[in-house]
Amino acid sequence: MSGFDVNRLDDAIHGRLRLGIMAYLMDAEAADFNELKALLDATQGNLSVHLRKLEEAGYVEIVKSFQGRKPLTRAHITTAGRAAFAGYLEALSKLVEKR
Amino acid sequence: MSGFDVNRLDDAIHGRLRLGIMAYLMDAEAADFNELKALLDATQGNLSVHLRKLEEAGYVEIVKSFQGRKPLTRAHITTAGRAAFAGYLEALSKLVEKR
Repeated sequence: MSGFDVNRLDDAIHGRLRLGIMAYLMDAEAADFNELKALLDATQGNLSVHLRKLEEAGYVEIVKSFQGRKPLTRAHITTAGRAAFAGYLEALSKLVEKR
Repeated sequence: MSGFDVNRLDDAIHGRLRLGIMAYLMDAEAADFNELKALLDATQGNLSVHLRKLEEAGYVEIVKSFQGRKPLTRAHITTAGRAAFAGYLEALSKLVEKR
C-alpha cells in the first residue's frame, strides 16, 4: 500500500459517526440534529458527543435556535471543515486506488 | 454523498491502527510484530490489542515462534481478512469517488 499513510488520517474525522456527519454535511452544507440522528442511526448522546468533537476541531458550527417553542439544533460545515475533509479523502484515496 | 453508507464500514477494520495493519498485510501477506510496530509508530501494548481484535474477527492469524532464543510474533492475513478488506475498500470508494 505504498503512498497510503494511516498516520495522515485526521482522527477528528476518521471516527465512524464523525465521518458520517462530515460526509453528509459536505453535500448538504447544514443539517438538523434530528435529521443526522435518523440518517446515521445514532443515539442522542452519541451524536451530541461527536458533533461537539467536530465543533471543537473547528469543522462544524452548531447553531441553536427555536422553532416555535421547540429547540432546534443545526450543524453547519465550516470552511476549515471542508478543507480538512478534502485532505482526509486525499489520504484515503491512496488506499482505495490500490483496489 | 449518495451511495456512501457509514454503517457499512466494518468496525473491525476501520480503527486507524487496525486499518494500517490490514492495509500493510494486504500487500505483504505477513509481517513481524516489530516490523508493524515501527511502520505504524505504535506502542507494544496498543499493537497487541489491535492485532488481537483482528485475530478475534478472523482477519489475521498470529503465529508465535522462536528465532534462536528470541520469541517471534508474526501476523498473517487470512482469506476472510482479504475479503473483508476488499468489502471495506468498496464501501469507502463510494465516499472517495465524490471528490
